[in-house]
Amino acid sequence: MTLISALDLASVAVFALTGALVASRSQLDIVGFIFIACLTAVGGGTLRDVLINRDTVFWIGNPAVLAVAAGAAVVVFFAAHRLESRYRALVWLDACALAVAVPAGVGVAMGAGLGWPIVIVMGMITGCMGGLMRDVVCNEVPLVLKQGEIYVTAAFAGAVVAVIFTALGLDGGLIGCAAVTFLLRAGSLGFGWKLPVYRARAPRNGLR
Amino acid sequence: MTLISALDLASVAVFALTGALVASRSQLDIVGFIFIACLTAVGGGTLRDVLINRDTVFWIGNPAVLAVAAGAAVVVFFAAHRLESRYRALVWLDACALAVAVPAGVGVAMGAGLGWPIVIVMGMITGCMGGLMRDVVCNEVPLVLKQGEIYVTAAFAGAVVAVIFTALGLDGGLIGCAAVTFLLRAGSLGFGWKLPVYRARAPRNGLR
Amino acid sequence: MTLISALDLASVAVFALTGALVASRSQLDIVGFIFIACLTAVGGGTLRDVLINRDTVFWIGNPAVLAVAAGAAVVVFFAAHRLESRYRALVWLDACALAVAVPAGVGVAMGAGLGWPIVIVMGMITGCMGGLMRDVVCNEVPLVLKQGEIYVTAAFAGAVVAVIFTALGLDGGLIGCAAVTFLLRAGSLGFGWKLPVYRARAPRNGLR
Repeated sequence: MTLISALDLASVAVFALTGALVASRSQLDIVGFIFIACLTAVGGGTLRDVLINRDTVFWIGNPAVLAVAAGAAVVVFFAAHRLESRYRALVWLDACALAVAVPAGVGVAMGAGLGWPIVIVMGMITGCMGGLMRDVVCNEVPLVLKQGEIYVTAAFAGAVVAVIFTALGLDGGLIGCAAVTFLLRAGSLGFGWKLPVYRARAPRNGLR
Repeated sequence: MTLISALDLASVAVFALTGALVASRSQLDIVGFIFIACLTAVGGGTLRDVLINRDTVFWIGNPAVLAVAAGAAVVVFFAAHRLESRYRALVWLDACALAVAVPAGVGVAMGAGLGWPIVIVMGMITGCMGGLMRDVVCNEVPLVLKQGEIYVTAAFAGAVVAVIFTALGLDGGLIGCAAVTFLLRAGSLGFGWKLPVYRARAPRNGLR
Repeated sequence: MTLISALDLASVAVFALTGALVASRSQLDIVGFIFIACLTAVGGGTLRDVLINRDTVFWIGNPAVLAVAAGAAVVVFFAAHRLESRYRALVWLDACALAVAVPAGVGVAMGAGLGWPIVIVMGMITGCMGGLMRDVVCNEVPLVLKQGEIYVTAAFAGAVVAVIFTALGLDGGLIGCAAVTFLLRAGSLGFGWKLPVYRARAPRNGLR
């Protein structure tokens, strides 16, 4: 197994856990858990593979990833009540999944010989879109768009690091990408690092 | 016309009726009816065709299916007020559409020579994703995720039946698939068959 | 640069402005602005390219369009407070974007040698789906489905005009398409032109 497919599989498992946790917040049944877990787990990578016109979408070539996602959903269905806070578990697992999905997306795009701007975008898509689909389908406020939180920014920074490592001919770009993505996202969750949000500046600029 | 394209066309027509009924609940105009009807009717099959990289998405190769969907939308626009309960009509038509869309998806995936896990998933995608798109766009609680109702499970069981028939070399797998899917879904609608849903088990595990 | 890529680029820039304005209504940070701007700007054209199985999605072949969308988002982030009404700016810019995106989609589909029904549908998809994705992700009522407003209808009429011009061997079909699309949409915004909406006709046909 290559590093990239290991990363893909790790992101599948961890994103599936987050999907199942969101399903538990919507009080779905076990099939609903598996459905949302699979959607979250393979959503970003599937979009990446369709966009870059890969011969075979990764989970069609290797259906075992769906079994991994389904297994993660079953574990959450029976064990989630043991968690102190399902929401805390959700956001931290989501951060871990992001940190492995971004380098997986970057690696696939580099392997397809794409230019650096598209490599960065594919890293961001692989990292962010599965969680976005999860939240849109379950009608949650998307984590990826939480006001001011560092999320897409973390994916962007991680992907840029991988591109720079490659441009300089250094090894370890995907590891660096995972580390930077996780540290930025974790800083936002743990220390409240934030970006400034847009605010309408005068009453005459109300929301309507 | 092969059995599979007949199934595809039937699912298009019936899903289009459900799309138009949801549009009537949102009080859209006739173009909105046609839009949601087409989205619902071809959404699942389109996703299937894109994922398995078919040369041509089914409705691009045969645009008549869009005319069928639009015609169904027009019928609903002018006749929906005659229904006793549009919601009841919606869920039962949706069950019929599911029962023809799943074998259609299974048939296409088998024809493409895919392995059995992907055949099952493609049956589920063809059956469930058009309705999911309809409900997400119209901001309804997705039928596919109604708590405890047998929906994705019915699609899964039907697809498994088709795969078993084929593995045993029996004819009639697609008919069996349609029957099992419809019976399970109808049992859930008519007799209240349910799956257990997840419940947080102690107050300290509140929803947040 | 051909007329079609100029239209594609113009629709990217203007749709990006609308995406950033919706992001401002959700009070996102600058990365959220760029994310929604890019999603809106390339969403419709991407779906078109995936559906017609183009070799390369347009922005993967030309990543500069993402820079244009990001630039538009930055401008809105710093300048939106100067607008009298961000909502008015949003709907009018959206009308302009629609009027360039529909002919762009029509042109691409004609260039791919597709039949006229699919040419019309691809014009509508390119025009309408980016804005729909923007509104679904930001949980706004989709502009494209505002009750009775002429939106999808305008896209449809414009695409039909382009097809008729081509069938008659006339030049200027794409210009005519843009003009008709804009006039119908502007008439709806400026003069309140509306289509009749569906209404349940008797109390016994309540929404449930």
